Amino acid sequence: MKALLLIAHGSRRKQSNDEVVFLAESLRRNGSERYEIIHASFLELAETLIPDGIKKCVDEGATSIVVLPYFLNSGRHVVEDIPHIVNHSKRDYPEIEIKIAPHLGASPLMMELLITTANATE
Amino acid sequence: MKALLLIAHGSRRKQSNDEVVFLAESLRRNGSERYEIIHASFLELAETLIPDGIKKCVDEGATSIVVLPYFLNSGRHVVEDIPHIVNHSKRDYPEIEIKIAPHLGASPLMMELLITTANATE
Repeated sequence: MKALLLIAHGSRRKQSNDEVVFLAESLRRNGSERYEIIHASFLELAETLIPDGIKKCVDEGATSIVVLPYFLNSGRHVVEDIPHIVNHSKRDYPEIEIKIAPHLGASPLMMELLITTANATE
Repeated sequence: MKALLLIAHGSRRKQSNDEVVFLAESLRRNGSERYEIIHASFLELAETLIPDGIKKCVDEGATSIVVLPYFLNSGRHVVEDIPHIVNHSKRDYPEIEIKIAPHLGASPLMMELLITTANATE
């Protein structure tokens, strides 16, 4: 059973965190037949933190997890912090395949998303 | 002549800012025939700031500008700061149509982008 775990930075502003949780819920409802388990988690400042997000996926029966950093820039969080935390969690679940996707800003589809968003404004 | 102005937050980390400038350059080269002028600008901490980005578009001949907040969450920057700055600039160019696009995180295509990015990881 495949799981997708979004990772956002986490904010002191509850609404920002709620947006990410809502996005994960929307994905669960409409987004994909590929991932039977979809959750949001946060690097810091908000619940659920990453290790608990991974645990939640495992507890729900995930046999593989794609961790996707919901970040636009490849800063230290993306390059160091998230891989560090995820790799640490991997040790707890040696039987589960856990992969880290490129951060969102690195997607080759980003240009299309920007142009489509701009076009819809005119 | 249509212009697209990306607005990122701006970072103390030069590489993060460079990524946004590079994204605007990529858009200019490959992204769209619709926008003859495409630039990046920043809310704070980095050059070019938003009013100078708008001026640059106007100086290059823009008759309409779509300002697109390259932000994932609808925080104060998206809801208050960017509209405030853009509306202030509008006064300087009453003959130019300047519209603010929804911030990136609000795009209905975001779910597709996330799923595609996750799928490419497996």
